[in-house]
Amino acid sequence: MIVIGIDPGTATTGYGVIKEDDNGNFEVLDYGVVSTRPDLPLEKRLKIIFDTISSLIILHKPAIAAVEKLFFKQNVTNAISVGQARGVVLLAFANNGIPVSEYSPAEVKSAVSGYGGAEKSQVQAMVKAILNLDEIPKPDDAADALAIAICHLNSYRRIAD
Amino acid sequence: MIVIGIDPGTATTGYGVIKEDDNGNFEVLDYGVVSTRPDLPLEKRLKIIFDTISSLIILHKPAIAAVEKLFFKQNVTNAISVGQARGVVLLAFANNGIPVSEYSPAEVKSAVSGYGGAEKSQVQAMVKAILNLDEIPKPDDAADALAIAICHLNSYRRIAD
Repeated sequence: MIVIGIDPGTATTGYGVIKEDDNGNFEVLDYGVVSTRPDLPLEKRLKIIFDTISSLIILHKPAIAAVEKLFFKQNVTNAISVGQARGVVLLAFANNGIPVSEYSPAEVKSAVSGYGGAEKSQVQAMVKAILNLDEIPKPDDAADALAIAICHLNSYRRIAD
Repeated sequence: MIVIGIDPGTATTGYGVIKEDDNGNFEVLDYGVVSTRPDLPLEKRLKIIFDTISSLIILHKPAIAAVEKLFFKQNVTNAISVGQARGVVLLAFANNGIPVSEYSPAEVKSAVSGYGGAEKSQVQAMVKAILNLDEIPKPDDAADALAIAICHLNSYRRIAD
């Protein structure tokens, strides 16, 4: 099963694509970020994000998408901005008939590091270890997207057990 | 010039399409709402909004879109929800090369009723009067979308003068 994890944002959207083989081994197929220039009109930035995610879907044919649930306690302006990016990301999956699972930040941290209050650096180190990578994936948004994909695979495995 | 005004929301997105002829007269071409069922997955609701706005663009061929700027002082959950709908609305315009103008709620109220702090009922009564309609357009989100389109046409006229 191939899972794509997404950490959405208007300035930077992270993505990570992981394949789980029949023996339960994880293989990283792809990860990175879509960055959009702040001087572009908002609608063009959203189109860049949508087009890139749509291309990744065609390339990797994921069976499912995992996207972080949004929880903002303070910054409403940021919530609107992330919400807009999240909207076009979800649309790209709907257009391709790919179901979306949502996980809270605490669920992602817990699934990857065993502790819902883990530090970012701990989560990143666990992403490297779980995926047998030589280095921690960069930039941070790409590592976060891989963590979200791992979270889905672990949740799925628990349900399937 | 044909302008489409949009009042975005995940549950209900209002739209209003107005044509201004060479003599500066306004004609309402269309208005209404896209409503999506709360029991549908979020990504399917966003796809319904995107597909409907895309169809309206093909039908009416607007030269420009006017969308309300978001200002939320309190409800962050609502900001995320409206942000997601707004994202797919802006994407529909970007996909068709249609520029988007953004106006604050106060700018819309001021352009329609002459007063940035006007009540909703005053704005709706002015929309009816300005557009020579027999009744106040219903539902409210459709009237709001027409007000946003009027705001753009009045702003444009001021700049052109």
